[in-house]
Amino acid sequence: MESHSPVADPGHVVKSSPVMIDGVALNGPTLDVSAAEGFIQQSMAIIMEDAVRKATNVREKVCEWRSPEQLKELLDLELKDGGEAQSKILQRCRDAIRYSVKTTHPRFFNQLYAGMEPYSMVGSFIIEAIKPSLYTYEVAPVFTLMEEAVLKKMMEFLGWEEGGDGIFNPGGSVSNMYAMNVARFHHCPDIKELGLSAVPRLVMFTSQECHYSISKAAAFLGIGTKNVYVVPSDKRYHLQYHLCVCVCVFSQGAEPFMVNATAGTTVLGAFDPIEEIADICEKYNLWLHVDACWGGAALLSKKHRHLLKGIHRANSVAWNPHKMLMACLQCCAFMVRDKTGLLQRCHSARASYLFQQDKFYDVSYDTGDKSIQCSRKPDAFKFWLMWKALGTSELERRVDRAFAMARYLAQEIKKREGFRLLMEPEYANVCFWYIPPSLRNMPESPEFWQKLHTVGPAVKERMMKKGSMMVSYQPHGDKVNFFRMIIISPQASREDMDFVLDEIDRLGQDL
Amino acid sequence: MESHSPVADPGHVVKSSPVMIDGVALNGPTLDVSAAEGFIQQSMAIIMEDAVRKATNVREKVCEWRSPEQLKELLDLELKDGGEAQSKILQRCRDAIRYSVKTTHPRFFNQLYAGMEPYSMVGSFIIEAIKPSLYTYEVAPVFTLMEEAVLKKMMEFLGWEEGGDGIFNPGGSVSNMYAMNVARFHHCPDIKELGLSAVPRLVMFTSQECHYSISKAAAFLGIGTKNVYVVPSDKRYHLQYHLCVCVCVFSQGAEPFMVNATAGTTVLGAFDPIEEIADICEKYNLWLHVDACWGGAALLSKKHRHLLKGIHRANSVAWNPHKMLMACLQCCAFMVRDKTGLLQRCHSARASYLFQQDKFYDVSYDTGDKSIQCSRKPDAFKFWLMWKALGTSELERRVDRAFAMARYLAQEIKKREGFRLLMEPEYANVCFWYIPPSLRNMPESPEFWQKLHTVGPAVKERMMKKGSMMVSYQPHGDKVNFFRMIIISPQASREDMDFVLDEIDRLGQDL
Repeated sequence: MESHSPVADPGHVVKSSPVMIDGVALNGPTLDVSAAEGFIQQSMAIIMEDAVRKATNVREKVCEWRSPEQLKELLDLELKDGGEAQSKILQRCRDAIRYSVKTTHPRFFNQLYAGMEPYSMVGSFIIEAIKPSLYTYEVAPVFTLMEEAVLKKMMEFLGWEEGGDGIFNPGGSVSNMYAMNVARFHHCPDIKELGLSAVPRLVMFTSQECHYSISKAAAFLGIGTKNVYVVPSDKRYHLQYHLCVCVCVFSQGAEPFMVNATAGTTVLGAFDPIEEIADICEKYNLWLHVDACWGGAALLSKKHRHLLKGIHRANSVAWNPHKMLMACLQCCAFMVRDKTGLLQRCHSARASYLFQQDKFYDVSYDTGDKSIQCSRKPDAFKFWLMWKALGTSELERRVDRAFAMARYLAQEIKKREGFRLLMEPEYANVCFWYIPPSLRNMPESPEFWQKLHTVGPAVKERMMKKGSMMVSYQPHGDKVNFFRMIIISPQASREDMDFVLDEIDRLGQDL
Repeated sequence: MESHSPVADPGHVVKSSPVMIDGVALNGPTLDVSAAEGFIQQSMAIIMEDAVRKATNVREKVCEWRSPEQLKELLDLELKDGGEAQSKILQRCRDAIRYSVKTTHPRFFNQLYAGMEPYSMVGSFIIEAIKPSLYTYEVAPVFTLMEEAVLKKMMEFLGWEEGGDGIFNPGGSVSNMYAMNVARFHHCPDIKELGLSAVPRLVMFTSQECHYSISKAAAFLGIGTKNVYVVPSDKRYHLQYHLCVCVCVFSQGAEPFMVNATAGTTVLGAFDPIEEIADICEKYNLWLHVDACWGGAALLSKKHRHLLKGIHRANSVAWNPHKMLMACLQCCAFMVRDKTGLLQRCHSARASYLFQQDKFYDVSYDTGDKSIQCSRKPDAFKFWLMWKALGTSELERRVDRAFAMARYLAQEIKKREGFRLLMEPEYANVCFWYIPPSLRNMPESPEFWQKLHTVGPAVKERMMKKGSMMVSYQPHGDKVNFFRMIIISPQASREDMDFVLDEIDRLGQDL
């Protein structure tokens, strides 16, 4: 048990008589700190071995599949009156890791994030150990400044020469909500107080390829999903910038306030033509938001940043370094070009218990009133630390490699019998069908497509049960189920690309 | 460098010829895994020493204050083209910890969370190491089931005998947003598609003591801050249940849809009378939301749970185990009593790339479409693991101890010259003024209060610069700046309570 005499203040008198209140003894701490430290130490060894070494070893499984019923039995989930011994809890840690999917495994290609990033991981451990929360400088001085530094640097890559403002928040979906709220507040500041029932019907535009969070945000913010006007995409899945519907809307008495352009769509990795959309926004005085959650990383590549040409004209941008750039989950920036304090005016509620104006330091460092949250995690630190370690140049190399890897995979798909590319990859998404031998000589009739539609789920089930890799499948528009490979991890190599195609072929041969 | 031959599949042919695409070599991984592991290992030692041992040692400082300008200089924040050596990065980790506030320190009393919880900390390390995201069972099987188990148990404490539904999310503010959105969707499901401009003006009620997130949420959700009708509190800072304004509103053509009751207010720790408010909600067919983010923990105490009497009648509840119950930040549950899938219907957007219906397992375990987020962290695990380790009985003991400690502190305040209690504590918030000797013989004129108002900020500045403890101060309603002590950590003892009063007296003697 830790001695508790406060050496820092020798003037302080320690009372030795026990004090009881409501039957509770209040002398001394009730947490055995050295036992706690011993437990943390032992857990760290397990985490190192199982959650770092094994999880990222290509020879190990990506997942050890169990059905919900099996897993419930294995995990003994019920919470009880009595506690358990530390040795039991250590075993529970091992089990939780064992039956979890290893998203850091080199063959996890299932989501828009993947891979192990050691610096960012350590950054997140530090956050978890000291539990900071970002609202006031006094509680999170280091992380407040780091967030500022990271946002500043990211805005440089956006080409916002005058800077801007921003906030890290829990997810690209939330960033897109911020965008809609700031855009409508900019359009009509009265909305904050009076609500939407006091103003004409607001409408916005987006491409049909946008992320589903746009729809969620419109519902959540009270705009209504039907007031999101979906603009048809062209054959390359880019928003058609002439925005034909725009004209119709203007004649329907509604008030357009915003266009959402997507830089790197979720399924296909397509980039909307920002420059042209910016022209339209300027002409019609609409807020331009760019959802670059996935595609923003391309800005770090001199070779590929042209995909986001025009992003310097955006009024706001969402960009998630936890995706291609591999910061630990979650690490999501929302940025506005405005420098007049719009973000703060839009979200402030001036809680007097947090944002006292009579503090002894410059309270402009209290960023909490820009946020829709109260407690907020210092996610920027996870990105700052890895950026310091890797430098911009290594980040750029990684992005370039992901692009190149996607192109390699696309080439291989074109060479192989039974594989068909859905489209040339524009980014690190490679979408393709696997056509099993039984379908290869069939005419491409409705029956063919119907049968092909069942291949994705069947192969996915087999790869999950084998644990050899994870690749997602989905239908999309009029396209039946196809595979989507996402290539991010610097641990994944050409050999893994070959492996994926070989493995799909092995798993799907008899379908 | 890790050998990369996939032993799991000996059939896979490794190509030895180098492949270049766009000038990038694609053979083999580019991450040196063993170097990465070495770095993580070294970092863990630093975290153990600086962020766990030192951070929680009462003889160390709570914070090492630096002004924003000083800290910027110390931290060298700029992100550059080149990376830095691992040894440099390790030093950066040490510095980040050193200049951060130690919220796990036994003398951090500044927020509604505090203290070190070893099991929850380890849970969070595991999450950070394997980077799960909760949307589909296939990507987070273990954590999906654990969330379900934790919610089930928490709902037992709410007294929801039939169960309900729920979701962990990034903060009590977001939980309160969920509540408003679900309540209005329940009131009028068309809002999701048509938005608020298509329906009559919605209004809601809350007490003036509620958290500022209610106002933020009303703005964000398009309801408008002026449509939140603030009900005056009584002398004990409880919402006056007769809701006198309610009547006025009914006659003004607006549509009331919800009442927000607060169980444990932020500043004073007051509990609104839920039972009476529930009567009114039933009578007028209003959704009853209870913001028990802070006070929910009292449900674990047989002695104190009467404070939340009637919570079983709530339609929804927000409850943050990261506060009094010490789960690592963030750990916040939003729960609805509805069992018909309201939460999902209200928030679903049916993204076909995530929520495929032709999966090989029971897709009711894919919880992502209940959420307003896409990626979502498995925060429930941090609570599950500590609950397993401690058992309900130890959680109860901790809650009871926090109540008792607050009562002890209040008693001491009443005994001491120069200290004055604002009100008897109802929960673990103890609010009081420190009256320096120079003011003790003054009549309580406006000048007295004006001078007293400056004492909080002055003492706070001194305690921060000394680093001896952190206690918040704030004005509240017509009350001038007072101190608010929040007592949570089982490391904090009676001796620390005495220390706090002694220290304030030492720091403020000459004011």
